[in-house]
Amino acid sequence: MTPGPSYEGWLPGVESLCYGGDYNAEQWPREVWAQDVRLMTEAGVNLVSVGIFSWVRLEPRPGEYDFAWLDELLDGLHAGGIRVDLATPTVVPPAWFFRDHPEARVVTRDGVPLGPGSRGAAAPSSPQYRAAAARITTELARRYGDHPAVVLWHVHNEYGAPVGWDYSEHALVAFRRWLADRYGGLDALNAAWGTTFWGQVYGGWDEVALPGPTPTAGNPAQLLDFARFSDEMLRELYRAERDIIRQHSDRPVTTNFMAGTHLGTDLWRWGQEVDVVANDNYLMAADVDNHVGLALSADLTRSVAGGKPWILMEHSSSGVNWQPRNVAKKPGEEKRNAFSHVGRGADAVLFFQWRASRFGAEKFHSAMVPHAGTDSRVWRELVELGGDLAGLAALRGTRTVADVAILWDYESFWAQDLDWRPSVDLRHREQVEAYYRRLWHDGVTVDLAHPEQDLSAYRLVLAPSQYLLTAAGAANLTAYVASGGTLLVGPFSGIVDEHDAVHPGGFMAPLKDVLGVWVEELLPLREGETLTVTHGDATLEGRVWADHLRVTTARTVGTYATGPAPGLPAITRNEHGAGTGWYVSTVLDGEALRTVLADVYADAGVVPAAPGAPETIVRRGADADYVVAVNHADHDVDLELPGGPTVVRAGDVAVFEVER
Amino acid sequence: MTPGPSYEGWLPGVESLCYGGDYNAEQWPREVWAQDVRLMTEAGVNLVSVGIFSWVRLEPRPGEYDFAWLDELLDGLHAGGIRVDLATPTVVPPAWFFRDHPEARVVTRDGVPLGPGSRGAAAPSSPQYRAAAARITTELARRYGDHPAVVLWHVHNEYGAPVGWDYSEHALVAFRRWLADRYGGLDALNAAWGTTFWGQVYGGWDEVALPGPTPTAGNPAQLLDFARFSDEMLRELYRAERDIIRQHSDRPVTTNFMAGTHLGTDLWRWGQEVDVVANDNYLMAADVDNHVGLALSADLTRSVAGGKPWILMEHSSSGVNWQPRNVAKKPGEEKRNAFSHVGRGADAVLFFQWRASRFGAEKFHSAMVPHAGTDSRVWRELVELGGDLAGLAALRGTRTVADVAILWDYESFWAQDLDWRPSVDLRHREQVEAYYRRLWHDGVTVDLAHPEQDLSAYRLVLAPSQYLLTAAGAANLTAYVASGGTLLVGPFSGIVDEHDAVHPGGFMAPLKDVLGVWVEELLPLREGETLTVTHGDATLEGRVWADHLRVTTARTVGTYATGPAPGLPAITRNEHGAGTGWYVSTVLDGEALRTVLADVYADAGVVPAAPGAPETIVRRGADADYVVAVNHADHDVDLELPGGPTVVRAGDVAVFEVER
Amino acid sequence: MTPGPSYEGWLPGVESLCYGGDYNAEQWPREVWAQDVRLMTEAGVNLVSVGIFSWVRLEPRPGEYDFAWLDELLDGLHAGGIRVDLATPTVVPPAWFFRDHPEARVVTRDGVPLGPGSRGAAAPSSPQYRAAAARITTELARRYGDHPAVVLWHVHNEYGAPVGWDYSEHALVAFRRWLADRYGGLDALNAAWGTTFWGQVYGGWDEVALPGPTPTAGNPAQLLDFARFSDEMLRELYRAERDIIRQHSDRPVTTNFMAGTHLGTDLWRWGQEVDVVANDNYLMAADVDNHVGLALSADLTRSVAGGKPWILMEHSSSGVNWQPRNVAKKPGEEKRNAFSHVGRGADAVLFFQWRASRFGAEKFHSAMVPHAGTDSRVWRELVELGGDLAGLAALRGTRTVADVAILWDYESFWAQDLDWRPSVDLRHREQVEAYYRRLWHDGVTVDLAHPEQDLSAYRLVLAPSQYLLTAAGAANLTAYVASGGTLLVGPFSGIVDEHDAVHPGGFMAPLKDVLGVWVEELLPLREGETLTVTHGDATLEGRVWADHLRVTTARTVGTYATGPAPGLPAITRNEHGAGTGWYVSTVLDGEALRTVLADVYADAGVVPAAPGAPETIVRRGADADYVVAVNHADHDVDLELPGGPTVVRAGDVAVFEVER
Repeated sequence: MTPGPSYEGWLPGVESLCYGGDYNAEQWPREVWAQDVRLMTEAGVNLVSVGIFSWVRLEPRPGEYDFAWLDELLDGLHAGGIRVDLATPTVVPPAWFFRDHPEARVVTRDGVPLGPGSRGAAAPSSPQYRAAAARITTELARRYGDHPAVVLWHVHNEYGAPVGWDYSEHALVAFRRWLADRYGGLDALNAAWGTTFWGQVYGGWDEVALPGPTPTAGNPAQLLDFARFSDEMLRELYRAERDIIRQHSDRPVTTNFMAGTHLGTDLWRWGQEVDVVANDNYLMAADVDNHVGLALSADLTRSVAGGKPWILMEHSSSGVNWQPRNVAKKPGEEKRNAFSHVGRGADAVLFFQWRASRFGAEKFHSAMVPHAGTDSRVWRELVELGGDLAGLAALRGTRTVADVAILWDYESFWAQDLDWRPSVDLRHREQVEAYYRRLWHDGVTVDLAHPEQDLSAYRLVLAPSQYLLTAAGAANLTAYVASGGTLLVGPFSGIVDEHDAVHPGGFMAPLKDVLGVWVEELLPLREGETLTVTHGDATLEGRVWADHLRVTTARTVGTYATGPAPGLPAITRNEHGAGTGWYVSTVLDGEALRTVLADVYADAGVVPAAPGAPETIVRRGADADYVVAVNHADHDVDLELPGGPTVVRAGDVAVFEVER
Repeated sequence: MTPGPSYEGWLPGVESLCYGGDYNAEQWPREVWAQDVRLMTEAGVNLVSVGIFSWVRLEPRPGEYDFAWLDELLDGLHAGGIRVDLATPTVVPPAWFFRDHPEARVVTRDGVPLGPGSRGAAAPSSPQYRAAAARITTELARRYGDHPAVVLWHVHNEYGAPVGWDYSEHALVAFRRWLADRYGGLDALNAAWGTTFWGQVYGGWDEVALPGPTPTAGNPAQLLDFARFSDEMLRELYRAERDIIRQHSDRPVTTNFMAGTHLGTDLWRWGQEVDVVANDNYLMAADVDNHVGLALSADLTRSVAGGKPWILMEHSSSGVNWQPRNVAKKPGEEKRNAFSHVGRGADAVLFFQWRASRFGAEKFHSAMVPHAGTDSRVWRELVELGGDLAGLAALRGTRTVADVAILWDYESFWAQDLDWRPSVDLRHREQVEAYYRRLWHDGVTVDLAHPEQDLSAYRLVLAPSQYLLTAAGAANLTAYVASGGTLLVGPFSGIVDEHDAVHPGGFMAPLKDVLGVWVEELLPLREGETLTVTHGDATLEGRVWADHLRVTTARTVGTYATGPAPGLPAITRNEHGAGTGWYVSTVLDGEALRTVLADVYADAGVVPAAPGAPETIVRRGADADYVVAVNHADHDVDLELPGGPTVVRAGDVAVFEVER
Repeated sequence: MTPGPSYEGWLPGVESLCYGGDYNAEQWPREVWAQDVRLMTEAGVNLVSVGIFSWVRLEPRPGEYDFAWLDELLDGLHAGGIRVDLATPTVVPPAWFFRDHPEARVVTRDGVPLGPGSRGAAAPSSPQYRAAAARITTELARRYGDHPAVVLWHVHNEYGAPVGWDYSEHALVAFRRWLADRYGGLDALNAAWGTTFWGQVYGGWDEVALPGPTPTAGNPAQLLDFARFSDEMLRELYRAERDIIRQHSDRPVTTNFMAGTHLGTDLWRWGQEVDVVANDNYLMAADVDNHVGLALSADLTRSVAGGKPWILMEHSSSGVNWQPRNVAKKPGEEKRNAFSHVGRGADAVLFFQWRASRFGAEKFHSAMVPHAGTDSRVWRELVELGGDLAGLAALRGTRTVADVAILWDYESFWAQDLDWRPSVDLRHREQVEAYYRRLWHDGVTVDLAHPEQDLSAYRLVLAPSQYLLTAAGAANLTAYVASGGTLLVGPFSGIVDEHDAVHPGGFMAPLKDVLGVWVEELLPLREGETLTVTHGDATLEGRVWADHLRVTTARTVGTYATGPAPGLPAITRNEHGAGTGWYVSTVLDGEALRTVLADVYADAGVVPAAPGAPETIVRRGADADYVVAVNHADHDVDLELPGGPTVVRAGDVAVFEVER
């Protein structure tokens, strides 16, 4: 293989894929530190994250700093050739902070302040917290801004987890300020929130409250704005620390996202703020096919990064500790996981954490050095993985190829999650995942996309669940089809605008032209009820949802045979301009979805992989493609390459360089 | 058909059945108002409810009033011939009220104050709230007391929902006052509450607390009194507004009950306070036979009204928005619903709401004018229904015929709902509904009745679940049987008195004479366990419950074959005076209940309808009966009328006039 | 039969087994008191517990005492020959106490103070509560310390139920004091709690908080210490009252434990504090074999008593009132229950309560005199039981024989119950009960034992679930085996030390020598997943758990055939010194456990009973053994006795004296 291209915005001086993990050295005595550097070298580790939870060790009393231990640690790592991703420790303020500022704690919706002894307890809008965080960040950035070991800054940790919503008095003050900025005046707020409903009109800013506990459902527009506000408070925290660092350091700055699991932070906005995108990914143990969820997380991360390489900042060598049943990884499973991440754009593979903690809440979380030590399967596999990654330097900076997109929109998710929707069974995440899973099995690599972004590069765009769709978003989708694109829309899409108000003209009105249908009435099903759709010679089973559809210019492709709308259209296809708009008005599973998508693929010119093919992703370099193949089956599988067929062994991975 | 009789107490000047809905005009611009009047006329609408959530629009700042828009609205409706049910808007105080009086908020049992941004957040016992409500009610009544459009006053909205129980400091003060009124002195309170149990004796009124959160079960008599108190606080609110209105207006006053779903308000007491009874009814979507629940709600409403016609103040044209899965009505279903209500005594059929809201928490609730507009099934069916109702003016004022009663007693329900009863599986509502459902299928129209009311008009009285039964109630039931009535009692009845104390003499002691049995021990079953009862040649299956029964004068009709009391009596029949008392000591389903009731019907002279007959209710006028038939089946059904057989078409309704 | 030996530490002057119950006389008028003494005599009652909930009757206002009624009651009982177990009434302070000291209420983790109107609402660490309790205890002890009726003191009631954990401000102060006593200084606390994890290091005692609500999992060592602290606060309360009583009375002092249901109080510590052990036991109605749970409760009580006779202070004559479905006892069932308790060491059989309350939260709890009165099955059976017990005076003071022990360790239970363990499906209680149940069916009488106690008397020790195991405990188990004992260890044992820190060396490291294996990785299964183990010719089914086991000196007896560790050892046997250590690394049910235990019994020289034998327990006197046999079957069963076979009749009990 030839080396990959150099590229802007990556970690300075790092010429290979990165490998390593969180290194919470303060939990261990000095004699372990020296042993750690030796073991890191043995495993091929070249990057560790340091200091994430170290605030109290760096500032043991207000304004008193102790950097000696960190100096020693960084120097030791540097001497051992290990580069450092240095964290600001602001995710856990010291106990003295909460003693001095009990009002700076996060408060639950029911008014319960959340205490220390855990993590994430500081109220994002607290001026006291912001000031304290700025002070420690300034001290750190000043001292280590030019440290030769430091190649990256890791601001805070997993913003928004475990809690992102705060109902403290500080939050109330900040919410009113944020609303005043957003709306300018109360008339605009009253209009946006529809306060004539249930007589909620506000006459003064001091009347506006947080969306706390109410006797019954609250104002949905207020709740949606509170979600936006809460996310924005976190970004204010991030930006403040980032800007301080930039005054003292030229190293890139990031923070670790949780693309696969956390929907509270709008990563489309966060992606604009970081120098390089980083993500934490953990398998959901209850799902036996959780490598599909991993792929979705990785594809979303890459999409948030605008296609550029990204850092897998945390994942696990084996089981985690916070799920109900923390299943360990099987032999070979971690290797497959790591290669799937790399195939989908990761240029760094890091773990939480280097060495398993003996104490604390996460001691049952796996690590690179497990409790059993180095005489263990986990350690032996990670040493091997380190060697494998070292051999893949050519992939660095190459771009993953995807020409299909699935819409992913946090604001729509937030709005759909509010109370009193037509059916609790229509869950946005489930709808998106059902389509994603089908495409994964069809070997189609996808980007996730925002409905208002440029979609022209995609052959096919799917909107399985787009409840909230702005007029601008609808216009964008319509223009995309008019220009030749293929669009598929799932049920309960295009319902409300950015204020959770039903679009004038009724449900799905903004998509009427592009889809050639409109929705007269929503027809959710009872729990467990099914219906059937006649589709050519086939009978498809649907669940959860139907519409009373009214066709204007579309052609009916599938017709309800049973259920709440017998004889009415269920699946429609509309030619609009140079492209095609499909509407699928019910929830289809497995084979039914394959049947429908076959026609949609044909419209879009998408060619699915042969059934049973390995997971295959292409990273495109300047002169060559790198085909990353991951075989999740327990038998060898054939793979077609431009140069002819090859074999990927049972449970194994392979990377093939294909000249272009 | 000939016109029905005029009658007292109905809406002044209204000569036909009423038709219409809630009209929240403040959510719409003026151009829609004019369109609305035209569409109302098209649909046959003649009555709309106005102003329910308008407080903040009428009093935008404390003491500043704006009635101009309401003047314009009422005048416009009047000009269009639409009559108005004018609401006091006190269900939602303006945001400025809660800003000025945060202590006037409802507080949950756990001490969490419930905020604004929703509805129903004002503490019923708050003097501040009471004063503010009195002020706006006075202003409204003064201004519109004689308005020609106004034919009815709609006080507040759905008292007791979404929350009826308040644990604020205001509630504590009011509870102590209410108890002092009720008991006179602490000795009486200590005796009534049985405070020698667990050493709870009170030595001063300032020791008496609200029944807040406790380490384990609280005092049941205290909890029962708190339920009574909470209901009484709401009636105090209602009476205050009603009495203000009466000073300024001679139009009838009502408030909308929730007979079918809400057990927190004692409608036997509420029914005494209103000039005309009004009810809101919503189908429970999860129940495929929810028209039976509708019938129960309607029969209860009529019973609360003392048999007089009543107003269906709210129901839905199709699906609602607050259930987990909001199933839309099928074509024809709303017509069947409306006619069942009319058959069971409604002289007014109104919807929530006229026009679907574009924003707010209820935008997915159906309306007369749906989001899709008038090119819709819903609109077309409602226009047709308006025409049908216009043709039924003869029914106005006629009385529904019922000669069977089922006991329905809020105080008993409240007491049985308290903690630590013998079995969580014996749910009063379920027991009452099981008997009601059986009678519905047998074509028997029933009243609901209080155990202490005059029962002499009924051939048969059923008490499926009467846990709390006062000595007076037991004497009333005994006298009813002695005079020739037939009584059936279900398990766990006659257990406690009005203070939730077990009757001296043991379980069911007050019914010992009338039933000829007594209960030595209660024998609840394990979860899912069943038993069998030998009943003549039949073997009946029972669930949930058995008794160790001791027979005195009764005859054993069914004997436990299996279960916790093998060989002991399960079902008994006792001749007492001129009548008969039945006791059924277990929970029987479906066919088993039919078997037992066949004998009971025979005792009472009740003749069930032929299997498969349509739902049939009779309204009796001065000279004629009006038979309302509703066919819920998907095939035509024969109906026997005095004049010979006729047919009710599949899914359709019919009204037949029968001369008397 | 010959009379049993007299013995130290039992109730003074009581020469037979005790029989009776709680007597809440203050709930009844005087005329009932006289009737009660007559009925007690009829039933053979010789001991009643008096005054448990009487504080407010004894001290109706602060500092004002009324003992006249209690004088009369005790004198009346004494005159009737009924002995008294006199309670301090401190479980329910009067309402005036909470009025005067609202801050003395228990506060929930979420900060909600729990009010009066129930029981157990006083914060254990409240100085106000402690002072008030000391005052009433002093008054009582002074007045009745020498009363001739009083043979026992009953301090408080069911410490720790319904709530044992308090988060009040008083608790915070006390927790800091307790920690300072325990650790001496903050350095030791920081080390013990592992506060370098998540940056929680404390710099001052005023920074240490209660383990209140946190955004995510709290510090497990802090939570474990809070469990210890909370239990210790209760013991401080008990000791204070006991020591006051001892100043005024020479009668023995006890308090009633809840060995079978409540894991919040460390009975190994509590057993050291009482003069005689007393226990409350209630059947779990949902379990059709709940006599096995009864046996476990009784065996644990006896073990806590160090093998000495104990008092069954409360059980029920029939159903209780606080379970979801309160199933009544079948005819004969209570007799079997009582004899099983006696066989397992109870020398006193008492009920809650003498006479069923007419009012209050427990009126549906059965009693000796039920609501139905004396014309009832319950009363007749209890009169018979009283006679039976009177005939068993010879058993008094004899000792139950047990030579097998199961480990039972509250600290381990507390630690394992914390959040974020590998699998929610591995529940300590369930594991212990599964082994106990198997041994019960094998007719093996067991003691429960603490891992650090002397185990040398046992042939076999089982540790089905010993997550927390100190180094001292591990050394004790190792020495036990080295000296010839047989040990069986279940999965997830020997994981952490007393601070919930993983043992150096990895999972189960302290048991490496005695078991000859170590655990490389924990391999919990998915929900509902099963695996198989090849064991000789048999295939055993396992659930929930597997380990990646590494064998050193053990022999593999069972091998995983399927599941997460195919081909690896599942069950091992290790010869260590003169004994044998077994490790069973998965969860086995029913027959699988029987298969494995057969080999373990053989190692230990334990001979199981023949299948189908009655429950049989031996009490050993000075010269004779008393074989207590309880036949739970509905058919007669043969029983082998040294003198030859005999028969125990269906559903009946028998006691056989066997000379030694």
